[in-house]
Amino acid sequence: MNFASDNWAGAAPSVMAALARHSTGSAPAYGNDAVTQGVIQQFRDLFETDVAVFFTGTGTAANALALTAYAKPGGIVFCHPEAHIQVDECGAAEFMTGGSKLVSVGGQVNGKITAEGLTDALAALPEGSVMHGQAAAVSITQASEHGTVYSLDEIRAIKAVAQSRNLPLHMDGARFANALVSLDVSPAEMTWKAGVDVLSFGGTKNGCWCAEAVVFFNPEAARSFEYLRKRAGHEFSKARFVSAQLEGYFENGNWLQTARHANAMASKLSAGIAAAGGRMAWPTQANEVFAIIRKAQADVLRKSGAVFHPWPEHAIPQDLKPSEEELCIRLVASFATEGSEIERFLSLL
Amino acid sequence: MNFASDNWAGAAPSVMAALARHSTGSAPAYGNDAVTQGVIQQFRDLFETDVAVFFTGTGTAANALALTAYAKPGGIVFCHPEAHIQVDECGAAEFMTGGSKLVSVGGQVNGKITAEGLTDALAALPEGSVMHGQAAAVSITQASEHGTVYSLDEIRAIKAVAQSRNLPLHMDGARFANALVSLDVSPAEMTWKAGVDVLSFGGTKNGCWCAEAVVFFNPEAARSFEYLRKRAGHEFSKARFVSAQLEGYFENGNWLQTARHANAMASKLSAGIAAAGGRMAWPTQANEVFAIIRKAQADVLRKSGAVFHPWPEHAIPQDLKPSEEELCIRLVASFATEGSEIERFLSLL
Amino acid sequence: MNFASDNWAGAAPSVMAALARHSTGSAPAYGNDAVTQGVIQQFRDLFETDVAVFFTGTGTAANALALTAYAKPGGIVFCHPEAHIQVDECGAAEFMTGGSKLVSVGGQVNGKITAEGLTDALAALPEGSVMHGQAAAVSITQASEHGTVYSLDEIRAIKAVAQSRNLPLHMDGARFANALVSLDVSPAEMTWKAGVDVLSFGGTKNGCWCAEAVVFFNPEAARSFEYLRKRAGHEFSKARFVSAQLEGYFENGNWLQTARHANAMASKLSAGIAAAGGRMAWPTQANEVFAIIRKAQADVLRKSGAVFHPWPEHAIPQDLKPSEEELCIRLVASFATEGSEIERFLSLL
Amino acid sequence: MNFASDNWAGAAPSVMAALARHSTGSAPAYGNDAVTQGVIQQFRDLFETDVAVFFTGTGTAANALALTAYAKPGGIVFCHPEAHIQVDECGAAEFMTGGSKLVSVGGQVNGKITAEGLTDALAALPEGSVMHGQAAAVSITQASEHGTVYSLDEIRAIKAVAQSRNLPLHMDGARFANALVSLDVSPAEMTWKAGVDVLSFGGTKNGCWCAEAVVFFNPEAARSFEYLRKRAGHEFSKARFVSAQLEGYFENGNWLQTARHANAMASKLSAGIAAAGGRMAWPTQANEVFAIIRKAQADVLRKSGAVFHPWPEHAIPQDLKPSEEELCIRLVASFATEGSEIERFLSLL
Repeated sequence: MNFASDNWAGAAPSVMAALARHSTGSAPAYGNDAVTQGVIQQFRDLFETDVAVFFTGTGTAANALALTAYAKPGGIVFCHPEAHIQVDECGAAEFMTGGSKLVSVGGQVNGKITAEGLTDALAALPEGSVMHGQAAAVSITQASEHGTVYSLDEIRAIKAVAQSRNLPLHMDGARFANALVSLDVSPAEMTWKAGVDVLSFGGTKNGCWCAEAVVFFNPEAARSFEYLRKRAGHEFSKARFVSAQLEGYFENGNWLQTARHANAMASKLSAGIAAAGGRMAWPTQANEVFAIIRKAQADVLRKSGAVFHPWPEHAIPQDLKPSEEELCIRLVASFATEGSEIERFLSLL
Repeated sequence: MNFASDNWAGAAPSVMAALARHSTGSAPAYGNDAVTQGVIQQFRDLFETDVAVFFTGTGTAANALALTAYAKPGGIVFCHPEAHIQVDECGAAEFMTGGSKLVSVGGQVNGKITAEGLTDALAALPEGSVMHGQAAAVSITQASEHGTVYSLDEIRAIKAVAQSRNLPLHMDGARFANALVSLDVSPAEMTWKAGVDVLSFGGTKNGCWCAEAVVFFNPEAARSFEYLRKRAGHEFSKARFVSAQLEGYFENGNWLQTARHANAMASKLSAGIAAAGGRMAWPTQANEVFAIIRKAQADVLRKSGAVFHPWPEHAIPQDLKPSEEELCIRLVASFATEGSEIERFLSLL
Repeated sequence: MNFASDNWAGAAPSVMAALARHSTGSAPAYGNDAVTQGVIQQFRDLFETDVAVFFTGTGTAANALALTAYAKPGGIVFCHPEAHIQVDECGAAEFMTGGSKLVSVGGQVNGKITAEGLTDALAALPEGSVMHGQAAAVSITQASEHGTVYSLDEIRAIKAVAQSRNLPLHMDGARFANALVSLDVSPAEMTWKAGVDVLSFGGTKNGCWCAEAVVFFNPEAARSFEYLRKRAGHEFSKARFVSAQLEGYFENGNWLQTARHANAMASKLSAGIAAAGGRMAWPTQANEVFAIIRKAQADVLRKSGAVFHPWPEHAIPQDLKPSEEELCIRLVASFATEGSEIERFLSLL
Repeated sequence: MNFASDNWAGAAPSVMAALARHSTGSAPAYGNDAVTQGVIQQFRDLFETDVAVFFTGTGTAANALALTAYAKPGGIVFCHPEAHIQVDECGAAEFMTGGSKLVSVGGQVNGKITAEGLTDALAALPEGSVMHGQAAAVSITQASEHGTVYSLDEIRAIKAVAQSRNLPLHMDGARFANALVSLDVSPAEMTWKAGVDVLSFGGTKNGCWCAEAVVFFNPEAARSFEYLRKRAGHEFSKARFVSAQLEGYFENGNWLQTARHANAMASKLSAGIAAAGGRMAWPTQANEVFAIIRKAQADVLRKSGAVFHPWPEHAIPQDLKPSEEELCIRLVASFATEGSEIERFLSLL
């Protein structure tokens, strides 16, 4: 009954198998090996376009470096107030970009920023005012930090606003696969066809050990990226150990299966909790459940071995705020979550 | 016959086995797991003192972050003109530290800086001159970039000079194990007992996929290090994948065996080349051979499938410079190098 | 009738006179001259304690460098959402500190943050959470960006909250003199006696050309400051040109007189506008007036030669928001504002 | 007899007069005033082309910001080992650019880098090698740190080498006027016509209080410069105080006269010292004299009130090194140096 986070899981079997398969023999370092080149081609096939792809070992690195590729002096990145880049990455984006400011967009709905909120935020930033700095990018997280998923229309609407100020749209896809199978669309549809310029493609939470990719849909924007990555210490010498993970991740559609499994487990959890009288702080659309339950229930669960984190209340919508007897908890399902864990959890409620 | 670099090898069997062993089951993220805690304790045992240890995925990250922990505004780091941090890391140390200057120390001998050279370099930097900036650290590479090894006396002498200006001594130990078995001393003797303050402990080149550690011998100096690492995107969520590698690396003294093997292979290569009339640009003391051979020989070797890199001549001592018909090549042995490769190589000379 | 900003004025006569007086003759560069040393002593006398003082040419430099002296990796500075450092300095604090995050404190009253708001903001930042980064400083602006002044009690209350997390309190004193004469207290009382750790002391807006000072009340905290300033290009070679300005600024209490004059002019404006039916968005407590008047009035004033800026409405308290026919304007009085300008302005209302 | 530095002088009379002239009355802040606009036009006239001009208060700021406009990740700037940016600016260029490396060019002659030396330095930096970083700019100082002046041919030859790698040529013109009158050419000839892309135009050392300008000969390269300058705290609010200085500096060719005077004073000193048996470490071509005299002479001079600095010996050409009884001293003449000072100095030799 471990629902602490999808990063508490280890590696999926196909990922480990690929790593083992490529662990022997000599291969050029720094990405000039066949495995890496093959996986880069897979990204092109997957996204149905010519992309520039660069691997990193952490999502924080992927996000911060992606934003650095578009950084400007006095640059401002617009994002959700609870975006991972805003509150969970120790200022990595600010540091890596040389001091950008991350401005939270108001008027969010279901853990997502809205085109209207972004319009307002941009309106408060006069164009060409040196004092205020300059808008540099818009970043959204798909699936969001609250377990919800932007629809293609929502992404397009945000892009339209960003486009009006010539701003690139970054997608933090730490849970890209979970969002993709939730929407049941293609990677191309959820990204460049909807207006995404650069993607942090996450593999770690969905079955890799540490495999993330920065994907540029306009390869020209990536022209200095290799230097950005290297100077930040994010180029692996034995690069094939990341690409091997992704090879195993992609083979036989494994990544979509693990994501579907995690989402299904979350849905089951969510439905079961609702049936037991719990409320959802945000709808369950991917592999994260934000449930408001009674504190007494949480105690019983914990004593029985369930592992999960409480969730801070300040972000919960006003009409859903927990009462004194209640508590918001986050439950995350992963590729490794078993149905029996869910059943036991629900039976304890 | 692949002698291109020790980072062209994959992972040692014990490393892969440990990774596989820990790939299932749930464990706290961000280093709060038992494997990580166990490996940290191993570092304390290994170095016979209370150390603060932080894992990273690349040596460049380890070096840059270690120096950042000691960074000062207008700070100057003294190092060898061919130090990895100076010429092979794309300015990572400069970037991460917020703009330090890396000053090359003159008067090197056998690929190593000397106490005398350091004394001269420091003399050219007036203390307390705001215009000049301020000395911040001294960095040496053990084994050096030229395949040689600092003796304990040499380290102590360099430390004495550094100490006279209150400068910490950093050791880039990308090939720490190779130096250690070459000197046949203990980790403690080669580090803090000789005056090293902070070590970049390398596992990658000697059998890991990507496992490096920053080791502080004065834990107080590490008090902000977790933040430094995180803000640079170098904290792995599934941290146990690095510690698992190191667990496999250390078990049964595997790391010392792989290093001894690599060094022995390099010695064999070096002796064989010398026997065949080649000269060494620098003595072979670890797992790298810098041999000056005839261009004709190099051609034959390459055609027969040998893989190696030519080495730039500017760093080669004046009295050893290659003639028009000669060429300096670098040959690196690793844990995976086989005796038969050496024999074939030598037979082709 | 120029009320655009106090930085549209030139230099006060005593400032120009001092500059002229010291413009001939040789004097050591970089602050080792007698004028500079004399002014530093004046700061010590003025603040009745041993302070470390460093001059800069802009308030943005003073603020950014002061915060850099207290910067931490992943550091977070708490300030008002309309603080100059937050919205008017093009990310200088973020850049100079190596990527700090500036977090706006909620629950402001009259353009000032409150102890309660700061308590809440700090509560949302768990101590010791590497992901979230770490609190580094609290910054207030005295007089505030909305023309109001923190009382000594308010400063003390904010300090108490900051102190509970060991955070230094920075005061952006771009309009320090205006606040000082408004409260009618001593410089010591308004700063270190109330808990201020570091002050950006502004001279420019109140009669200097370009003379600001970073004042550390704990000189130990300034130990690297000379290097921070130099590496940012903020050390003047002919340093006496800044100190000469301040010499002229301080002599015969000139700085207090110019501030009193500017405040009195603002009061007169504010009272006159209120008498003519205007409302104040925030009370007039220093030399800035934020008046809500009818658009028709603003048109008449502009046509008659009055110069002033409209003020964005998003920061105005809900119950005071301008109607469709109204407009919020900012009027700033300076040492050079003349009573006759005010009278003409009011007569045009 | 003060020859310590040209920055020990105050302000030239025409500079002070212009400052006084513009010290009253209201004018738009941040450079939108008539004086600033007028001086910008003067720069265009002076350089006979469309330039983008930005004022700063220090030469360190001008240099660091100019190089930042051309910065690249992992970027390398090539310069003289004694360049001001390399040894006298506390790492400002490294800091401002986000961690560039400043690489000293070998094979200098008379305090100047040579096209040959630059060719060699570039040859050691493989193009497209991510590990090595990337060449970003070449910087020369005119007049040089050793009091010599690059001929137009020398500048052109350096530019040709830089051009071969598409590198911009930066000129640190802290003593621009002194070099200009020494060569007796036009500002256009000494800059863009010879291949200079960006110039740090110095006014401070030659009669201003603090007035420097970054001049881009390709205005497109300056498109983000206002943001770069602001985020570094280098935009003055009362901007006219810098432009007023430059107005006074330029009027009636005052700047050329002060430079000619300083150069003539230096020539007189140099000739007199040579006549008295002194040697010159480098030829006297602008307003700085580097003389090797007997220590006994230096003592007499100092006791008689002469002020000057000793110069470190490590940079002095081998065949000119001072003997045990000798000492190298630097003597700097300025606009304020008087002939009688020189005469007294020489008489004391």
